[in-house]
Amino acid sequence: VAQDRLVEKNFFQELGIPTPGFAVVNNLEDLHVAVARLGFPAILKTRRMGYDGKGQEFIKPETDLAQTWESVRGYDCILEAFVPFQREVSIIAARSVSGEVKYYPLSENLHKGGILRVAECRENDPLQAQAEDYVSRLLESLDYVGVIALELFDVDGKLLANEFAPRVHNSGHWTIEGAETSQFENHLRAILDLPLGSTAAVGNAAMVNFIGGLPKVEEVLAIPGVHAHWYGKEPRKGRKVAHATVRSTNDNTYRNALPKLERLAEQVDDS
Amino acid sequence: VAQDRLVEKNFFQELGIPTPGFAVVNNLEDLHVAVARLGFPAILKTRRMGYDGKGQEFIKPETDLAQTWESVRGYDCILEAFVPFQREVSIIAARSVSGEVKYYPLSENLHKGGILRVAECRENDPLQAQAEDYVSRLLESLDYVGVIALELFDVDGKLLANEFAPRVHNSGHWTIEGAETSQFENHLRAILDLPLGSTAAVGNAAMVNFIGGLPKVEEVLAIPGVHAHWYGKEPRKGRKVAHATVRSTNDNTYRNALPKLERLAEQVDDS
Repeated sequence: VAQDRLVEKNFFQELGIPTPGFAVVNNLEDLHVAVARLGFPAILKTRRMGYDGKGQEFIKPETDLAQTWESVRGYDCILEAFVPFQREVSIIAARSVSGEVKYYPLSENLHKGGILRVAECRENDPLQAQAEDYVSRLLESLDYVGVIALELFDVDGKLLANEFAPRVHNSGHWTIEGAETSQFENHLRAILDLPLGSTAAVGNAAMVNFIGGLPKVEEVLAIPGVHAHWYGKEPRKGRKVAHATVRSTNDNTYRNALPKLERLAEQVDDS
Repeated sequence: VAQDRLVEKNFFQELGIPTPGFAVVNNLEDLHVAVARLGFPAILKTRRMGYDGKGQEFIKPETDLAQTWESVRGYDCILEAFVPFQREVSIIAARSVSGEVKYYPLSENLHKGGILRVAECRENDPLQAQAEDYVSRLLESLDYVGVIALELFDVDGKLLANEFAPRVHNSGHWTIEGAETSQFENHLRAILDLPLGSTAAVGNAAMVNFIGGLPKVEEVLAIPGVHAHWYGKEPRKGRKVAHATVRSTNDNTYRNALPKLERLAEQVDDS
């Protein structure tokens, strides 16, 4: 379901989970019809194989539709209305073989060029209950086992589903240090049918991705409250090669660390 | 230095770190002299190869010294006065290549049969400064790099050194979940000459060893706040095969979990 954007969107709708407007686009004529219906701006997305912003074209009034269609030709697409969201958030949840379910506090996510840059834990977010409701529908309907992530747009306090990922998720990496039980530990507990661990936050937490290049690890670790996760991957344009978490029960430590990490990430970013 | 109890004790004394009274015992005559000097009770310990209570004989007034000496014959020993301590504690510290030093909050340790059973994090312990002073003398004198553990007896608020371990230590396993930076992460940071991470506690934390046998992991994980660490070792009499940590910022969760873990540990304990 999650591999095809059309099937996924239809699935959301069946479950009563609101989404941005969308339309099927299998040819240039479809694209013209879809743009007329959804208006500008909109995003043309290939139905399959898209991730980290790949296979997406932004459509504005001045966009040459024929040319854009050329650039994705050969792939079935959907057109999505671009919603003027205030925030992007995601909810990570775990469901075990026996059906026990736990929800993590919302992650507030910052994307640039379709790639996740920063994910921040939002304890007691006013939209937590709404997000839990939506992801619980996915979990129950799929009889899902393991960790799942649902990405949502916050539009004036109403959540619209963007996509879901049937796995541990980049926007939940802050849980390694920042939650009582990490998304990885709870994924294992879930699939082994063990009792799930508490998903409560342990202080403030956020994660910053390093994309395309690595900062000096000693500069990262010199920031109080920070932990480094290097993936051992060859740096490559637009590739996530590491992340760092800041986790602290001290508000000042936290507020001091996050912009420093973001600056280090920007310096190495080649995307 | 840490491999020979006599060299170790002399080293403590050179550094001005108090220890229980002790005497060299190389033969039965030495043992008689030592017992006369140190009094009862006392512990005869082989100088080398002792761990987890192995190579130790408790000496009371009714003990047959000749027979006890037979049981350790062939090994050089020391006799140690048994001190009437209120608590056993340890301090874990890390020192990096550049000489940066961090101290963890004291661990309060419970041994039975010479084997560590429970280690509890003691934030703001009144003896923290005294323990830091002593372990810092070891670190500087040895130009030590990495994590070290110093085990101490608390006798009426005065610390006496028992032994030190030049490595990450069982009494510091609670730091995996219970400290901002675990002893393992700080050991790596230290030997790689990276900035050390904060050693501050994250809520209440304690560790319980499973010795000789394993409880059901689902019973362990059903206790809120608990994390399981299974070593994948074949269970064997007196062997540490796993531990569990309870870590919680909620006092009730913590107080509820610890006795439950201890009970599970007692049930499997064959030592």
